[in-house]
Amino acid sequence: MGEARTKAALARAAAPLLSGAPRARREDAIRRAAALIRARSADILAANERDLERARAAGMSAPLQDRLLLDEARVCAIAASLDDIARQDDPLGRVVGGSTLESGLRIEKVTVPLGVVAIIYEARPNVTADAFALCVRSGNACVLKGGSAANDSCLAIVDACRAALAEAGIPADALQYVEDDAAHSQTAELLEATGLIDVLIPRGGASLIRACVEGAKVPVIETGTGNCHVYVHASADFERARAIVMNAKTQRVGVCNAAESLLVDRAVAPAFLPGMLSELAAAGVLLHCDEEALELARDLPAGSAVPATEEDWGTEYLALEMSVKVVEGVEEAVAHVNRYGTGHSEAIVADSYDACEAFLAGVDAAVVYANASTRFTDGGVFGLGAEIGISTQKLHARGPMGAAELTTTKYVVRGDGQVR
Amino acid sequence: MGEARTKAALARAAAPLLSGAPRARREDAIRRAAALIRARSADILAANERDLERARAAGMSAPLQDRLLLDEARVCAIAASLDDIARQDDPLGRVVGGSTLESGLRIEKVTVPLGVVAIIYEARPNVTADAFALCVRSGNACVLKGGSAANDSCLAIVDACRAALAEAGIPADALQYVEDDAAHSQTAELLEATGLIDVLIPRGGASLIRACVEGAKVPVIETGTGNCHVYVHASADFERARAIVMNAKTQRVGVCNAAESLLVDRAVAPAFLPGMLSELAAAGVLLHCDEEALELARDLPAGSAVPATEEDWGTEYLALEMSVKVVEGVEEAVAHVNRYGTGHSEAIVADSYDACEAFLAGVDAAVVYANASTRFTDGGVFGLGAEIGISTQKLHARGPMGAAELTTTKYVVRGDGQVR
Repeated sequence: MGEARTKAALARAAAPLLSGAPRARREDAIRRAAALIRARSADILAANERDLERARAAGMSAPLQDRLLLDEARVCAIAASLDDIARQDDPLGRVVGGSTLESGLRIEKVTVPLGVVAIIYEARPNVTADAFALCVRSGNACVLKGGSAANDSCLAIVDACRAALAEAGIPADALQYVEDDAAHSQTAELLEATGLIDVLIPRGGASLIRACVEGAKVPVIETGTGNCHVYVHASADFERARAIVMNAKTQRVGVCNAAESLLVDRAVAPAFLPGMLSELAAAGVLLHCDEEALELARDLPAGSAVPATEEDWGTEYLALEMSVKVVEGVEEAVAHVNRYGTGHSEAIVADSYDACEAFLAGVDAAVVYANASTRFTDGGVFGLGAEIGISTQKLHARGPMGAAELTTTKYVVRGDGQVR
Repeated sequence: MGEARTKAALARAAAPLLSGAPRARREDAIRRAAALIRARSADILAANERDLERARAAGMSAPLQDRLLLDEARVCAIAASLDDIARQDDPLGRVVGGSTLESGLRIEKVTVPLGVVAIIYEARPNVTADAFALCVRSGNACVLKGGSAANDSCLAIVDACRAALAEAGIPADALQYVEDDAAHSQTAELLEATGLIDVLIPRGGASLIRACVEGAKVPVIETGTGNCHVYVHASADFERARAIVMNAKTQRVGVCNAAESLLVDRAVAPAFLPGMLSELAAAGVLLHCDEEALELARDLPAGSAVPATEEDWGTEYLALEMSVKVVEGVEEAVAHVNRYGTGHSEAIVADSYDACEAFLAGVDAAVVYANASTRFTDGGVFGLGAEIGISTQKLHARGPMGAAELTTTKYVVRGDGQVR
């Protein structure tokens, strides 16, 4: 039995003691973790500095270094997020249905923890604390595996969280941290830990997620890949459309809810696109245009617009790049989005009621928007507190996932001797 | 592209036309299927007779032949079940949550179809009609694959259902039937049809389910395996306990909610077990007893009781056999059930309030019972109408699954130009 499997077994053994812990004790554990993270911030920052030194030596890119970096303010934000989660409504013990049958049997459907949740993520120290807190909030033991670049930072945070569990009277083994290895053999072990792990949630790049979904014998929730579109209908207010496109594409480019593709109705393309494309190009966006859009981009600085390939329609750039296509109307737009989208977040800009409703009903995605930026898809924005990920699959949970999405239900049936 | 994959692609293409069909049209399709099944009952019975002839020639066992058999009454029951499903509340378009954000964005969470549902089952003709109707009720295209022994019967029913779809103005391709082949290559194709199938539900024996769960690249919902226990606590009313044990074990032995194991508190074992075991033995039940139970079975006819092996505790007999174990109390009973059970249906018989609550809270299963038979776990009994299966996993759905469990949700967000 390898390390990951051993740790999953420890989490499994601790799970009933966490799932059975009363609400107050689970909240206490989360609050104590926040307090310990604040108290140990010097140690956590020192650990993070060791990670950063290795990262700089290895030539890690500036955006990835920024994602890895912790400072006083970020450590405080991590602790504040835990306090927020401790204040959330309890997702456990909610009676979500029930009835009394003709036989007199009384049935209730009650929310209960999943059991053991495994989360595989990248070099983001804050995910460690959030994932721990959401799992404890929902009564789940957890097995975390972060990216190796954040190893020291994650271990320092895990130490604080495990100490907090013990202080609150919950076995520290309810939180396990598996260190990354070059061969990814630990990931492989987690994917096969049937009976020990109730759900595995990969958070990260498309290749990690694909590998988990295809290789796992344990249930997986697919998250995050976002090839998101903004569709500008002929009836759109141009000013509104421009603001939404600029925000969705450029406000933050490396995130899954950023727009990657712009669709524009043929009827308004000549009036709308030249200005829109020029604004995008001025913001440094490389435009992958279909033939008609390329023609309307002719006055742009050289190199701002290039012909789109078939591959572009399915590409999540996560960069200052965008594909641009002219469409006949809402029907073609919906068909294009459903063909090439990843089921994440899709937006229409239109004044036409019928066009909006047709798009909202026709597009098959976790979140569909009329006249708003795709950037709003986020557990915090949607009021879930922190999020464990954004599900782009349809089973169990779809869209931003908070603590409630880490629960299942159980039918509790009370009788007085009924038989069939 | 093999036959199964081709058919899955046809279902995928038809899915938007079914999911977008108004409630009245979906209900019309189900009612027309009921009418056509009644009108064509002679053809369906003739097809069934061909299946039965092959089954008899192949030496199929009597219970399996009975499961395969259709007669006038059974065909009427199939049609009546469809009419029931057509009368159910629509599971689509329910607004299950929502709020208005500070930014003025209005969010609603609405139920929508999953898309394409694949169901692999055994030689049970009635499942064909029920699965079709539950999928249409929930707006899902479906790919069905029944056992080869029921091939002619299933095809006759599928013909009627596809004709009904077309009559109702929904593409007949929203229902696909894949014929079994000896090599199970069609099953393998369905398991790998990523992007074409949104969920695959295997209904059948443990080996079919295991193969699907472990081999699938598409999401799978695990169903049906039921190693169910009845635990008789020291405080139990013996008469009530005897009635529940006899019902759970012997009323119908081949079903997943039948009891396979009896646990009895040590304090009452000498008073309770001899009579209980004698009644079970008289009903033809072979008893696999632990040492203490075996000692209390000493007055039974020879051969009625044998020593239990470790394997017995984890065995779903689906036959007139039962494992019997003496336990110290509720804590040991809960631990035993959680170790060996399959998370299906578990019952305690007790007069002690504390014992009942400890069992109901401690046992990790889809349905937990106090003072009632495990045999009640059933979509029809629970008021879901027909069922597509009983989920024994924790993601998405747990326990009996009806049309509502074949839906997912979509966040619909309406704004007036909001950006972040």
